[in-house]
Amino acid sequence: MNYRMVFNIMGKILITAAVLMLPPIIISACTGATDLIALLLSALITAGIGGLLIMIKPRSTAIFAKEGFVIVALAWVLMSLLGALPFLLSGILPNYVDAVFETASGFTTTGATVCTNIDAIPHGIGFWRCFIIFIGGMGVLVFVMAVMPLSKERSMHIMRAEVPGPSVGKLVAKAKNTALILYAIYFFLMVTEAIMLLLGGMTLYQAVTTAMSTAGTGGFMVLGNGMIGQSPYLQTVATVFMLVFAVNFNIYFYILIKKLGVAVKNEELRWFFAIYVIAMLVITFNIRSQFSSFSEALHHAAFNAASLYSTTGFSSIDFNKWPTLSKVIMLLLMLCGGCAGSTAGGIKTSRVIILIKNGFNELRRLAHPKYVHTLRLENKAVPESVVRSVSVYFSVIIALVFASILLVSIDGYDFETSVSAVFACIFNVGPGFSAVGPVENYAGFSVLSKLVLTLDMLIGRLEVWPILLLFNPSTWHKRSTYR
Amino acid sequence: MNYRMVFNIMGKILITAAVLMLPPIIISACTGATDLIALLLSALITAGIGGLLIMIKPRSTAIFAKEGFVIVALAWVLMSLLGALPFLLSGILPNYVDAVFETASGFTTTGATVCTNIDAIPHGIGFWRCFIIFIGGMGVLVFVMAVMPLSKERSMHIMRAEVPGPSVGKLVAKAKNTALILYAIYFFLMVTEAIMLLLGGMTLYQAVTTAMSTAGTGGFMVLGNGMIGQSPYLQTVATVFMLVFAVNFNIYFYILIKKLGVAVKNEELRWFFAIYVIAMLVITFNIRSQFSSFSEALHHAAFNAASLYSTTGFSSIDFNKWPTLSKVIMLLLMLCGGCAGSTAGGIKTSRVIILIKNGFNELRRLAHPKYVHTLRLENKAVPESVVRSVSVYFSVIIALVFASILLVSIDGYDFETSVSAVFACIFNVGPGFSAVGPVENYAGFSVLSKLVLTLDMLIGRLEVWPILLLFNPSTWHKRSTYR
Repeated sequence: MNYRMVFNIMGKILITAAVLMLPPIIISACTGATDLIALLLSALITAGIGGLLIMIKPRSTAIFAKEGFVIVALAWVLMSLLGALPFLLSGILPNYVDAVFETASGFTTTGATVCTNIDAIPHGIGFWRCFIIFIGGMGVLVFVMAVMPLSKERSMHIMRAEVPGPSVGKLVAKAKNTALILYAIYFFLMVTEAIMLLLGGMTLYQAVTTAMSTAGTGGFMVLGNGMIGQSPYLQTVATVFMLVFAVNFNIYFYILIKKLGVAVKNEELRWFFAIYVIAMLVITFNIRSQFSSFSEALHHAAFNAASLYSTTGFSSIDFNKWPTLSKVIMLLLMLCGGCAGSTAGGIKTSRVIILIKNGFNELRRLAHPKYVHTLRLENKAVPESVVRSVSVYFSVIIALVFASILLVSIDGYDFETSVSAVFACIFNVGPGFSAVGPVENYAGFSVLSKLVLTLDMLIGRLEVWPILLLFNPSTWHKRSTYR
Repeated sequence: MNYRMVFNIMGKILITAAVLMLPPIIISACTGATDLIALLLSALITAGIGGLLIMIKPRSTAIFAKEGFVIVALAWVLMSLLGALPFLLSGILPNYVDAVFETASGFTTTGATVCTNIDAIPHGIGFWRCFIIFIGGMGVLVFVMAVMPLSKERSMHIMRAEVPGPSVGKLVAKAKNTALILYAIYFFLMVTEAIMLLLGGMTLYQAVTTAMSTAGTGGFMVLGNGMIGQSPYLQTVATVFMLVFAVNFNIYFYILIKKLGVAVKNEELRWFFAIYVIAMLVITFNIRSQFSSFSEALHHAAFNAASLYSTTGFSSIDFNKWPTLSKVIMLLLMLCGGCAGSTAGGIKTSRVIILIKNGFNELRRLAHPKYVHTLRLENKAVPESVVRSVSVYFSVIIALVFASILLVSIDGYDFETSVSAVFACIFNVGPGFSAVGPVENYAGFSVLSKLVLTLDMLIGRLEVWPILLLFNPSTWHKRSTYR
């Protein structure tokens, strides 16, 4: 482990974090909000710690895969620990564990909240709360990497741990350029949504924060009731953009370079929309009796299925009152969680496809042992090593889900609450059912549960391994005998 | 697919099934019960169909792995379809779907019941209900194989699909002798339990049926309240024997040949007892306030943890009233489900060990990519192919669990009922929580749910693949181009 290099990069990340606090500071100053001092103090502390770390000059800039994972994991942890300062210092969340939960929830684009009175949050911190989702969405490190001068080899190691999903290809030769293109698409789509929300009657503040929150598939909003009670137009805009941000960004790149054929032939995309449409229709029929018209049921099924499949976590209605079938469908959508290479959480639709195809392959292998069975995705043979790592990934995340449910259930909430809270956090969704339903929040959990769920959010966002590596003693050996 | 050979073996199996109906017929005749005619008729019909099938003479006796799987799967399905006749013809379960559910539940040693008035069942069918658990426990085909003259190669193919768990070694050179030894141990342990239950004041009928039910880790009893309200002595005897039957039978063979050292060093056995003791203690502290003394809480925690970990499904108390933590622990015990090479259900403790070790190995692999990481179990390196197949097995069974929960939730029962019903059936346990709790039953489910849960019981008992192969079209090709 190249400690000096890791500390140095952490310093740069924290200084970036301090710089990122400027927009909320400006907003706070302009609106005369009460949170200006808390935000200024937070930025100063973050910059100060960053400055101290940056003074540690690395003797060698060599970075291996292990360091890449550790940097990503520590970056997310540090951002959550220091990004929590505005909530803490302003007194909005006077408990540090709550403040860290809320911040990790933002940076991991989860959107699970412990705030009980969202309408009372001043504009500066209200903006910060949605802004960290926007930052988290594309990945702070993709941003940092595109801005800061890191060597090409190092960047790709960080990318490997960073970008969600198994199948993100490099769009262009250099990692830095890839990051810039992804970021440009991301920004453009966010602005488009904000304009469309403005046209629907939202204020600039509401539109921008909601668009940022959708872009990161996060789910925080500055409105206490979220999207509940908003106009059908606004809800429909949100539905469309939640789906847009759950699609592999490579697709938009292909559209950008006018390779529309490649884009629409994308196998994961087709599965994604097939699953979405089927789920939406089944939910529609299941909830039909709760609405006055079929189209109203369809509207809410479309909104909330998009919300949970994209792992955004907005709600257009209290879906906790829906029948068990709809809830189970929504839990499974949370698990699947959008496409690889998007800002969505979950295990990603492409992994689901690989797991299903591998199951069928295993059947064929048993029936015809002497025949070679190759798994194909996007018209390409998937290497055995990828299939293996997807299987292991799935086993481990399911094991972590079970372990987390076990720990969270100590609080004594009902079974539905315990299960859905863990699903909602580890798959970066936000709201669950029962006591963590869309009109509830996570404030009632014990400190232990909040810590477990915070860790789950980080584990889910960074695709399990980087966070687990932090707990692996041999990660921290200064000079490994085998590297 | 060698159809003639498959039909012929099915015929032999059905004739065996008819013969197996003799003990309940004798009991019914001796006790003057009202179910004699139903039982006689069932035996005649079963023997008749068996006789017709046996007349199909195979042109070749060649059997490959595929046929082995199909034979096992069809045997279980046929046994369930025809073993249901006594319930149907006696009018105890006038609905055929219910009768098949109950019978499959017995043969798969699940113990989930749709009978609403167990005390009213006459002695013949009451015995049959527990007897099919005893038959299912060790596997009808192990029994058939030991009795019927099949060539060695064929037997081992059947064994591969039959015997639960990944690590059952051949105890002795010949499959037939292996089966006989296992069966002798099984019978001896069952008789021992029956005697100990007799000493505790049970009637002969109660003691033998309960012992048979324990032996197969099934959970049916002839008493409506099951083990609830029985004396602490009887409950303790049951606790001990539930654990005994959840242990790999190889262990008893090693004890038999006086290799005690090998037996106690067994890694799976140590994990099994470690998990059991930890679970029992945590549950004890969790339920402490519901009992007047610590020892009473410990007693019930020990009984019900043993019951669900061994996947037997007896209950000494209505554990549905326990806190969420205890319920989650018990769901996880159901999932783990005893040791490989026992009559228990679940995914087996040895698979859990492999999955956990593989997770840690993956971490080490990421931290040190150039180092070779071997997974060791029982002091032997586990081949990569076994690790792979365990991963695939786990992914597929979890996917089936999710799919089943989805289908069962159509009935609109609460989340806890839907989840625990699927766990209880696919892991061959019996009772779950809420509407399928230990003092409830499965009678209220719709036909679709009962069919799904019946299929789950078969899928779980036969370790997924044989039943799934039945649904794979290429299994049924007469002459496969690739075999």
